[in-house]
Formats: sequence, structure tokens, C-alpha cells
Amino acid sequence: MVKPYVMGIDVGGTNTVFGVVDARGKIIEAGKMKSPSETAESYCATLSVELNKLIEHVGGKEKFNGIGIGAPNGNYYQGTIEDAPNISWGKGRVVPLANMLSAATGISTVLTNDANAAAIGEMTYGVAKGMKNFIMITLGTGVGSGIVVNGTLVYGHDGFAGELGHVIVKKDGRVCGCGRKGCLEAYASATGVARTAKEFIENGGTKSLLAQLDVNNVTSKDVYDAAMKGDKVAIAIFKETGNILGEAFANFIAFSSPEAIVLFGGLSKAGKFIMGPIQEAMDEYSLGIFKGKTKLLMSDLPESDAAVLGASALAWEIK
Amino acid sequence: MVKPYVMGIDVGGTNTVFGVVDARGKIIEAGKMKSPSETAESYCATLSVELNKLIEHVGGKEKFNGIGIGAPNGNYYQGTIEDAPNISWGKGRVVPLANMLSAATGISTVLTNDANAAAIGEMTYGVAKGMKNFIMITLGTGVGSGIVVNGTLVYGHDGFAGELGHVIVKKDGRVCGCGRKGCLEAYASATGVARTAKEFIENGGTKSLLAQLDVNNVTSKDVYDAAMKGDKVAIAIFKETGNILGEAFANFIAFSSPEAIVLFGGLSKAGKFIMGPIQEAMDEYSLGIFKGKTKLLMSDLPESDAAVLGASALAWEIK
Repeated sequence: MVKPYVMGIDVGGTNTVFGVVDARGKIIEAGKMKSPSETAESYCATLSVELNKLIEHVGGKEKFNGIGIGAPNGNYYQGTIEDAPNISWGKGRVVPLANMLSAATGISTVLTNDANAAAIGEMTYGVAKGMKNFIMITLGTGVGSGIVVNGTLVYGHDGFAGELGHVIVKKDGRVCGCGRKGCLEAYASATGVARTAKEFIENGGTKSLLAQLDVNNVTSKDVYDAAMKGDKVAIAIFKETGNILGEAFANFIAFSSPEAIVLFGGLSKAGKFIMGPIQEAMDEYSLGIFKGKTKLLMSDLPESDAAVLGASALAWEIK
Repeated sequence: MVKPYVMGIDVGGTNTVFGVVDARGKIIEAGKMKSPSETAESYCATLSVELNKLIEHVGGKEKFNGIGIGAPNGNYYQGTIEDAPNISWGKGRVVPLANMLSAATGISTVLTNDANAAAIGEMTYGVAKGMKNFIMITLGTGVGSGIVVNGTLVYGHDGFAGELGHVIVKKDGRVCGCGRKGCLEAYASATGVARTAKEFIENGGTKSLLAQLDVNNVTSKDVYDAAMKGDKVAIAIFKETGNILGEAFANFIAFSSPEAIVLFGGLSKAGKFIMGPIQEAMDEYSLGIFKGKTKLLMSDLPESDAAVLGASALAWEIK
């Protein structure tokens, strides 16, 4: 018998959101809780209570094909969260969350990293529907990625493939949160944009609207607001960021020649300010045989639902 | 009935080599001809005569599971060679070589680019046997690559994926044969090493054995010979080349997290002079979760056989 529902769970640094999703991608029940600063065990216990409430509410665990979890540093092969940077479950702690939730709910559970879940969401419900080869890039506090090749996610030999936020785009460049220098994430994340803004202002962007703000607390939202008012420095900041992304994308294209690169997350909302420069740099730096072939798309899933939908889509793949 | 043989064909810029291969990877008949400067049609006619001789000699076309071709700019999906840089069949010419040879021999024929064929060869007969995720890098006149994910080659949406010789490793760096600047190939190919040697000598490497040679005609072989004699400049040239490769590999690892990177071709024979520096840079530049996981291996297939074996291995995949 075909089971009508899946559960999607997105484990974030601040909140965990979850929902029951039907085969058409409609979220029919949803919930939310604080992500934990305590232990993994207490987190799992609280989450299980919430999940079981929703499960009972729609008719019990027999109605579920599975549970899918998207989580930072999630490992698909192991079903674990390994030392996630924004979740303080102890340095080096490997949390077998898929097994823990499966035991607590009686439903088969799979887990992957949040950007991989987003990629599956786009492939199942979004702009990448029907595509066999595409790359998902999530532009948020960090830069994440999910790579789809031949219709399946690239997990690599260890389950951690697809860390495109941590390709090095500038040798000896900015220090990244990962401890190395010059990662894409250090330039193209929301905090990367804020750092670029600080540099631009300190290097003479005094006529900018941004110069009126506290230079140490300028956010990518401030840059967007200024750009919308026609501020040239703000527009130049997005141009620089977009060019760095587009150059990196040209290299990604040489790797897997995707039909599309799909952007999702806060920064992608900078719209024309960033999409134009990305496209320009992609075109300029792509190898001849790839030029003009790979589409640059923005996710059209509503941001509030995308994380749950993405995680839930993973659970349809459970046989 | 299981068919006992496949034919492997390697189309090179100078020579075309081919052979009948059995299921154990033994080349039981082999042949060779000049690659053409005339038309694709006359090339195909000459090659077909040679192939049909071998085919008859081992018992006829019924004995063959298929023919596999490795060729520069080979497109797997189309079975075509598209505007290959070293084969003068006319600018922009797309040659449907797989169909042409299939028609001439009566045997199903598949074609891919030469580095992809090398990857399949390693997976079938070489050091990558049993691996589901690895990257093949061929270091020759150019730098080629074949990427295996989940046990299958990455062709991308258009059949051209895996052009890792043309990721840009230095922005506004050396002009590459592809017309862009800063490609890996411009540094890590045999000609790239020769260019580095010229730079090193002109920048004061006058005490080097290499300074006694014509600086415009130093080859990577000269650099190797000097390194073997303990020449410090020659050793530094390989170190620089190896570091550039290792940094690039760290980025490749962030993409597909392969179990191994397998090197093949002339430059990989520089052995310890280049493998050490590659390994060092890979270790230094890899993201924490990947450090120390991906093996760096050298192909152990005899160079004279590898191209034919690789192309032939492709033909076992024909159902």
C-alpha cells in the first residue's frame, strides 16, 4: 500500500521546524521548537514528543513512508550529525539522530545535510523538477551546496561531498569560519557580504548611505536596502560578491556540467543586484564548450516551507 | 551468451591504437595507425579495414560485446568527436565516429573522452577497482579528468562534464590553450612544467643544470632528469607544480569527496618529486572533515596498454 505522508524536519542552529507533507508537496501539519543548547538526548526527547503528536493527529505511523531530516554536517550514510558548528552538543560529538528518532517514532528515518535536503526539495517540488544534473547553492549565514548527478545526490565515499562553500576562491584570502583562508563562504555568505561592505566603506566609500551606519555592524540587509535606493557602493558590493560566485560557478560547471545552478536563501533575494553579476562572471569564466549552457535559477519555493519540504522529499526515497 | 571480447580504440592526435581485449583485461590482438590529417571519412574507412581484420582474426563480430572509443572532446551521449583541438577534421566539425564505426563493423560502439576512458579502465582493471567514488587525472600534454560518482562516470547534462584541467586556479594567470587565463592545465601539463622551468631560470635559476639548455626548449623530461641529479631548481619546479595540483585537488575533494585521486600520464612519472608536494598541498588546503581521507594513487597500468584497456572497458557496459 502506498503510504500517503512523509515527515520533514529541518534542524537549524536556532530553531527546528518540521511538518507532515503529502505526495503533492503540501504541508498539512507543521510545528516548530527551539534548537537545543543542552544535550542531544533531551533535544531528541522533546522533538519526539512533538513529532508523535503530529503523527497521531494524521492517523498514526502506518501512514508514513518515512521521516527525512536536513541538518548541518548531516551524514547520509551514517544518519548522524557530526560536530555541527552551530549546535553545542559537545565538541566532536557524533549524534545518531536518524536512529534516535526512528526508535522514538517507529518510522524509518534518513538524514542528510541541509543543503542536500534543499536540492532534493527542488528536484521533487521546485525549479529543478525533472532535472538529472544540477547544483543547489544555499546562500545564507553560510554557503551550502547539494550536487545532483545522474538524478541522485553526490554523497562521496564518506557521505560529506558537496561542500562548495569551502572551495578556496582566493589563496591566502579572508579567514573563514572553518579555520582556513579564502573560502567562497567567506565572501558570498551574508556575513561575507557584510565584511565586503566594511572593506568598501573603509576604503573610501564615505559617500555611501552605508557610511552612516556602524561599520562593524552593517548587514547584508543594510546593503540590499541601500542598493534599492540606488546607492552605488552597495550595488558595487553585490557586483563584487556576484562576480566571485560566478567565477566559482564556472569551475563547478567544469566539474559536473549541470543543466542549472539553483540559488536559494537570503542573499539570492538581492535579485538583479547579484544575479546579473553572477551571470556575467559565469559567462566570462566558463570554458568554451560550456558557455551559455547552464541556467542560473532562483528557487521559487516559499522560504518558510522549503526546508521542511526538502527534508521531507528525502523520505519518499525510502523503499 | 556472454561474448568474450571487446575492442578498445584510443584516438590520439598523432596515432590511433586499438586492440581486442578479453574479460580478464588481456589485450589479445593489437594494432596501430596514424591519426589523420585528411577527412573524418577517410580516417574511418582506413580504421574500419584494420578493425575488421582483427575482428575476423578472433572469430567474427559475434564474439564482441562492443567497441569502446576514447577520444579528445568525445561526447558520450552523442557518440561524437566535437572540434577536437589536435585533430584537423575542420573547425567546428562534429564527427559521429561511434555510428560510423558501428555501421562499418556491425558491432555496437560507444565513445567518450580519453580521460573518461582512462577512469573506466582504472575502475575495471586498475588501482580504482571496486571504488565507487574517485577522480582520474591525466597529466600529459594537457590535463584531463574523469570523475566517477556512485560507480558511474559523471557526464553532466551535455556529455562534457569533467574538464578539471580547465578549472581556473589563478585569476588572470597564464594564458591557456583554451583561450582563457589561469587554467590548471597551463601549470600542470607537461608544457605547463616547461613554462614554469623557463620562468624559474629567467628569474635567477642560473646555477641550475637547466640553465645550460635552450630556455625556450626546456621540456618536462629535462626537468625530471635534472631533478634526478639533485638539481634544486628542478626540484623546486616540481614542488611548485605539485602544490598547484594539490590545492586544486583540495577543491575537487570538496565537490565529490572521492575515495582516491588517481594520476596517470607522463608527469605522474616524476614520482616523489611531484607526489610529495601534491600530498602536502592536499593536506594543507583540504577542509577539516576531508583531511587525510582521500588517497593519492598512481595508475599501475602499463602506459602502452592503458588507453586501449580504458576504451575497451567502456564496451563491457553495453547491454
